[in-house]
Amino acid sequence: MVYLTRVEHFNAAHKLYNPSWSQEKNEAVFGKCANEHWHGHNYELYVTIKGRPHPDTGFLYDVKQLSQLIQLHILEKLDHKNLNLDVDFMHGKLCSTENLAIAIWEQLNPHLPAAVQLHCIKLYETPRIYVEYFGE
Amino acid sequence: MVYLTRVEHFNAAHKLYNPSWSQEKNEAVFGKCANEHWHGHNYELYVTIKGRPHPDTGFLYDVKQLSQLIQLHILEKLDHKNLNLDVDFMHGKLCSTENLAIAIWEQLNPHLPAAVQLHCIKLYETPRIYVEYFGE
Amino acid sequence: MVYLTRVEHFNAAHKLYNPSWSQEKNEAVFGKCANEHWHGHNYELYVTIKGRPHPDTGFLYDVKQLSQLIQLHILEKLDHKNLNLDVDFMHGKLCSTENLAIAIWEQLNPHLPAAVQLHCIKLYETPRIYVEYFGE
Amino acid sequence: MVYLTRVEHFNAAHKLYNPSWSQEKNEAVFGKCANEHWHGHNYELYVTIKGRPHPDTGFLYDVKQLSQLIQLHILEKLDHKNLNLDVDFMHGKLCSTENLAIAIWEQLNPHLPAAVQLHCIKLYETPRIYVEYFGE
Amino acid sequence: MVYLTRVEHFNAAHKLYNPSWSQEKNEAVFGKCANEHWHGHNYELYVTIKGRPHPDTGFLYDVKQLSQLIQLHILEKLDHKNLNLDVDFMHGKLCSTENLAIAIWEQLNPHLPAAVQLHCIKLYETPRIYVEYFGE
Amino acid sequence: MVYLTRVEHFNAAHKLYNPSWSQEKNEAVFGKCANEHWHGHNYELYVTIKGRPHPDTGFLYDVKQLSQLIQLHILEKLDHKNLNLDVDFMHGKLCSTENLAIAIWEQLNPHLPAAVQLHCIKLYETPRIYVEYFGE
Repeated sequence: MVYLTRVEHFNAAHKLYNPSWSQEKNEAVFGKCANEHWHGHNYELYVTIKGRPHPDTGFLYDVKQLSQLIQLHILEKLDHKNLNLDVDFMHGKLCSTENLAIAIWEQLNPHLPAAVQLHCIKLYETPRIYVEYFGE
Repeated sequence: MVYLTRVEHFNAAHKLYNPSWSQEKNEAVFGKCANEHWHGHNYELYVTIKGRPHPDTGFLYDVKQLSQLIQLHILEKLDHKNLNLDVDFMHGKLCSTENLAIAIWEQLNPHLPAAVQLHCIKLYETPRIYVEYFGE
Repeated sequence: MVYLTRVEHFNAAHKLYNPSWSQEKNEAVFGKCANEHWHGHNYELYVTIKGRPHPDTGFLYDVKQLSQLIQLHILEKLDHKNLNLDVDFMHGKLCSTENLAIAIWEQLNPHLPAAVQLHCIKLYETPRIYVEYFGE
Repeated sequence: MVYLTRVEHFNAAHKLYNPSWSQEKNEAVFGKCANEHWHGHNYELYVTIKGRPHPDTGFLYDVKQLSQLIQLHILEKLDHKNLNLDVDFMHGKLCSTENLAIAIWEQLNPHLPAAVQLHCIKLYETPRIYVEYFGE
Repeated sequence: MVYLTRVEHFNAAHKLYNPSWSQEKNEAVFGKCANEHWHGHNYELYVTIKGRPHPDTGFLYDVKQLSQLIQLHILEKLDHKNLNLDVDFMHGKLCSTENLAIAIWEQLNPHLPAAVQLHCIKLYETPRIYVEYFGE
Repeated sequence: MVYLTRVEHFNAAHKLYNPSWSQEKNEAVFGKCANEHWHGHNYELYVTIKGRPHPDTGFLYDVKQLSQLIQLHILEKLDHKNLNLDVDFMHGKLCSTENLAIAIWEQLNPHLPAAVQLHCIKLYETPRIYVEYFGE
């Protein structure tokens, strides 16, 4: 069993805002992250899969194909977008990095081939804050 | 003459949009960066000053005071903000990294003490794109 | 279950020195790290906690509060200090990175709220050496 | 139980090529990586061991000795080499990062002292692709 | 006048070898870098251009177009190649990082639009070695 | 004319302390950096030389020889040392990063061969603070 990780990048705007709360409560809880006009980040996304290398290629999975799957199912929907307004799979969810990492897992997992398993979604919001999700 | 650099960080939303153009032309020129709902970045800001170390301290300038000046005059206005909507010194300007770096120079320069000179504003928009401005 | 990591920074002096050994033996075992006049490092500290995101915030825990807890209980005691002389919770311990990571766990763990669990203390001594401790 | 990681570096040339396939099939599967004249990488190698710190030193293991073991058994054989042609322990294997990480584990593991266990070989092929192997 | 930098990446194999010298002299001068079977690197390429931001866009130059020019004229010829064997513009030259940086300048410069000037080619051979060339 | 940079690393303890001042004034000016028991850093040292590549080698200068010169004249004296107590060329000087960068220039410059010129000493004290010195 080996683990293969591909690192990808996207930029997005978001705000942290609970619509069932007042603007005051949102600002009290989320601080500057509740700015009504949004703020944004360069997200770094680490996708780790696991399985056995194929004897014909030495590859767990072709990393270029993995990159294309991430591009198609994740980056097309997130890059240069507003996470609160533009992203179908975040509708009705709070746009925390925790929830975004879980949602990326759920989006990507059905598209991986049977021979590999998704192991971890790791998402940097800033160079000093990141979240990991292992699917349970 | 020595050069001292302090690196700071801020997050912001923006879009690239020329209001004298149609939405179509904005999208044709700026591509995904013209997304009407904004996108955002983790900006890394390098402020470089130059001068002579003071014989009593060995310091060109106390780097903690430099950090506080940047915090007060730049980061308070940019961090967790929308560059197009929230930032007084960007009003009426296109929010490119080029224009932002020049505007940061103009904002910060008058607040530096006479003993030092501002040498360079270097601004990373992503880990693979940055702009430098030397004041002329 | 998600994992949230906050990265913090501190600078400190230390030496590796076993007081029950002669200076010669200390130098033979610890080499340059036994220099009697100390040396020092920029330590990078990764604190990882785990738990479930709160439905009202999407947060496992407010990362700003996590940062403040680390500041209060760890960085105040370690930053710009001498690990052998100035740090109460390192008294009588060898100041290896291994022992320091374990001690940071023991210092921080009692102060975390019940809803989250400390998962890992990861401590870089240099960009090429780090230690991880998972609490057992 | 603590985990200690040492990061090392080597440069090497390789190509991805299955000798039981035609050149056309190799190019179809491996793309640019099958270039007959080779290409190369700056590999970053993370070696993680685990165990208990020794009470006399505070060390899981002297990181300088760990570095020397890696130098002797791994880097001497890989650094500035052609992975397909020059490396005895890669003969007859496809030179994928997956297979190389497994082979490094098998090369290094017998030389570690009984008091520590090898935990992970992590190998960056580029800053955006890495493989981890935990020995099974 | 502002300076805009785009960072790109390529992998390549090479060796340092002066064909007018014996193998012994090549090994004496170039050491491990003369390995007849090649070695390789992940090169990081920084391309810096300078000029004035355009009033309609705020751009010195569209960084995506800059990236495409680098892709077309430089990366297509260098990425996953053997610098000594596969690259027309390095034929007959010693494949040092110095010579490669100068050659990249000469390749790229004629393709930049008149409104901008090439300012610097900076080329990392490893994370600890880089070369800069300013065109004269 | 090309510029070649080699990056090196050292760890050291120091404090900022002006012996002609009281302890109170030192603490008022230098803050935590005046801690009488020292603190320390992982310094990253960038040495840049300039000149013309030699036609026989393509090298401005053999980077391994440059590394050895830095090792011999700089790192042997600074690595795992106390900058205030152990370093002959810092005696009687305030141990600021500014003064240390100037002193490294003065130490290294006489040992470089005539065919190259020292261009810049760049010294990171932390990942967010660095000083550059160009010899005048």
